[in-house]
Amino acid sequence: MTATTLKNVRPMGAEAIDLHIVEGRFASAAPEGEAEVVDCGGRILVPGFVEAHTHLDKSLLGLPWYRNEVGPRLIDKIDNERQVKVSLGLDPQVQSERHAILAMSYGCTHIRSHVDVDTHHGLAGIEGVMATREKLTGLIDIEIVAFPQSGMMRRPGTAELMDEALSLGADLVGGIDPCGMEHDPKGHLDTVFALAEKHGKPVDIHLHERDALGWFSMEEIIDRTVALGMQGNVSISHAFCLGALDRAYVAGLQEKLAENRIHILTTAPASAPVPLVKELKAYGILTGAGCDGIRDTWGPYGNSDMLEKAMHIGMRNNLRRDDEVELALEICTKGGAAVLGLKDYGLGFGCRADCVLVEGETLAEAVALHAPRKLVLKGGRVITRDGKCVIEAP
Amino acid sequence: MTATTLKNVRPMGAEAIDLHIVEGRFASAAPEGEAEVVDCGGRILVPGFVEAHTHLDKSLLGLPWYRNEVGPRLIDKIDNERQVKVSLGLDPQVQSERHAILAMSYGCTHIRSHVDVDTHHGLAGIEGVMATREKLTGLIDIEIVAFPQSGMMRRPGTAELMDEALSLGADLVGGIDPCGMEHDPKGHLDTVFALAEKHGKPVDIHLHERDALGWFSMEEIIDRTVALGMQGNVSISHAFCLGALDRAYVAGLQEKLAENRIHILTTAPASAPVPLVKELKAYGILTGAGCDGIRDTWGPYGNSDMLEKAMHIGMRNNLRRDDEVELALEICTKGGAAVLGLKDYGLGFGCRADCVLVEGETLAEAVALHAPRKLVLKGGRVITRDGKCVIEAP
Ligand SMILES: [Zn+2]
Ligand SMILES: [Zn+2]
Repeated sequence: MTATTLKNVRPMGAEAIDLHIVEGRFASAAPEGEAEVVDCGGRILVPGFVEAHTHLDKSLLGLPWYRNEVGPRLIDKIDNERQVKVSLGLDPQVQSERHAILAMSYGCTHIRSHVDVDTHHGLAGIEGVMATREKLTGLIDIEIVAFPQSGMMRRPGTAELMDEALSLGADLVGGIDPCGMEHDPKGHLDTVFALAEKHGKPVDIHLHERDALGWFSMEEIIDRTVALGMQGNVSISHAFCLGALDRAYVAGLQEKLAENRIHILTTAPASAPVPLVKELKAYGILTGAGCDGIRDTWGPYGNSDMLEKAMHIGMRNNLRRDDEVELALEICTKGGAAVLGLKDYGLGFGCRADCVLVEGETLAEAVALHAPRKLVLKGGRVITRDGKCVIEAP
Repeated sequence: MTATTLKNVRPMGAEAIDLHIVEGRFASAAPEGEAEVVDCGGRILVPGFVEAHTHLDKSLLGLPWYRNEVGPRLIDKIDNERQVKVSLGLDPQVQSERHAILAMSYGCTHIRSHVDVDTHHGLAGIEGVMATREKLTGLIDIEIVAFPQSGMMRRPGTAELMDEALSLGADLVGGIDPCGMEHDPKGHLDTVFALAEKHGKPVDIHLHERDALGWFSMEEIIDRTVALGMQGNVSISHAFCLGALDRAYVAGLQEKLAENRIHILTTAPASAPVPLVKELKAYGILTGAGCDGIRDTWGPYGNSDMLEKAMHIGMRNNLRRDDEVELALEICTKGGAAVLGLKDYGLGFGCRADCVLVEGETLAEAVALHAPRKLVLKGGRVITRDGKCVIEAP
């Protein structure tokens, strides 16, 4: 029997206790026989971070610096990326492994990754990330969204590839700006939801459209969710239109999202409107977060640290009080876990021992500092020690 | 003669060279006689960071965690802070020293700090920060703005204390939201500029007012700048009203700011409108940046790292291309230096050897990574090594 005792640890910042892990799960009693004892030095323990929106196939980690001279529009970035992937030698398996290992070093135990599906690269991205998922089994859980980054209506043949990706093992159907990118909201969303129905898989749609355009697309998503009885199985990523100034209109939308259990995933960008996390909470809309793409052809920033992302959510949402900062942290842990529908997530007895030791006197200080992680466990097994993942990146 | 050679160093990311420092300044020739040789390992060298907007008297560094339960309005934060300073045992000398040393560990060589002047605490803040400035002479340069945080019109007696602070050694006259805080723009600005005229010192005004209210106050500041011939000696901090949606109106204001050489200092907050740094650059408006208050009763975030602040400026302004990210870095170095009117700043021959080794293949990567600083020099003297300041914080 594998058993570990975390000595002198403060779950969620509470009083220090000893916490027992037996067979990869938190247990109420001290393990029988030999148990490894880890002195946690009075540090705070939180559940593993959930990176609920990223792109494992895109980062340039480990490659020479990419000098970004890309144009300002969304389509410039999409077209540039599709074209330079090959010349840059981007191998989706290698890049996704590097990215996942970096995330693990920061305490991430679950990832939902969008992975490009297009007629230029076919299913190479999906196959690469699936290989990484296989390779890292037991060390981190990876959910794959088949993501038509370059559009399905704009590029015939993509929908068929999406269908194949879902047969092959992608877990969710992705989508993107039905109006702004696809110029055919009906065509795009009908295709997304038809794929979801055919494969019995949930949906997660990138929606960057702002104000009334985004509201329109969001209503279309809600209508299809209702029509197919997909309540609880649809997420909207970004949802910039919920950050619009017309709060009265947004309130009406938020009511419908709550009613139909549609989840929101925010990346809390500093330069775009964002859903207000305190409002989402008040409406009971499940909310997770992600770092989005990191260090890729889109931009140079990002490191896969969901504790730093909690700070960015706090800064973007002007969260200053301790209870507010704790909300930002909650979104990066159990919020994302709820959106992903994770079973046995948390620090309670019986939960899987996916957890992270963080630095700081309180949860808010842990967020503000986001210092290197002393220890990260996945199913009771050490995956990171002193900020370094035990797995070497390729 | 003190002499140092920085071997294998890349100034601003250029080809690696050896750089000579003689008597605290960059020199074109190898020093005569013995020189200390430092191997820079091919790292990039940038000039020392200029923290051009912070509050050295406010941080809670080194104190037990402060649980923030403060109300949402600006005045809630101001009133709370004034009241709890004493009960928290905030000694402005100790706190400013801790803060400055933290900044030095991140490569900051110059600070402009606003320091509270109010009828509750009198000149205790000014005296404390002046004592720190004295103590750290030669290690970091500190400029002090006498700052009427709690208002002058709202609290009689404050203007007289401001006058005393300027006689005592404060370098600039501060001000704050003439309408939103003071409810008497004429009274407030007349007092600020009268103090500036009397003491022959520059002005730096906090302006959080948004949209038309901020435009009005800004026009009033411009008018007084012109009337007193203070072109080049006035800075406006925050200037949220320049981030307003009505870009046509803002364009007119920016023309006037440029014409009268009024500088802008941005803290690039994620949750408020901000001046657009690319526009300021296009107008030729000198622009610096700062971390604002860090870890204080206002909020838990911040660490005094101006290289991370460059990233935040980049994220807030949606700067993704390498040349754009370099602009963000420029604002945190020579932009701030220009606003402060620093002499002999930079990496050229004859300039003071205030400089920082940063990690990364390019300037943009250095910003994105903002990894701990290998080495920081002030006037040729090592002040930080491997991310740790050579001075112990109290
Ligand atoms: Zn995305
Ligand atoms: Zn300030």
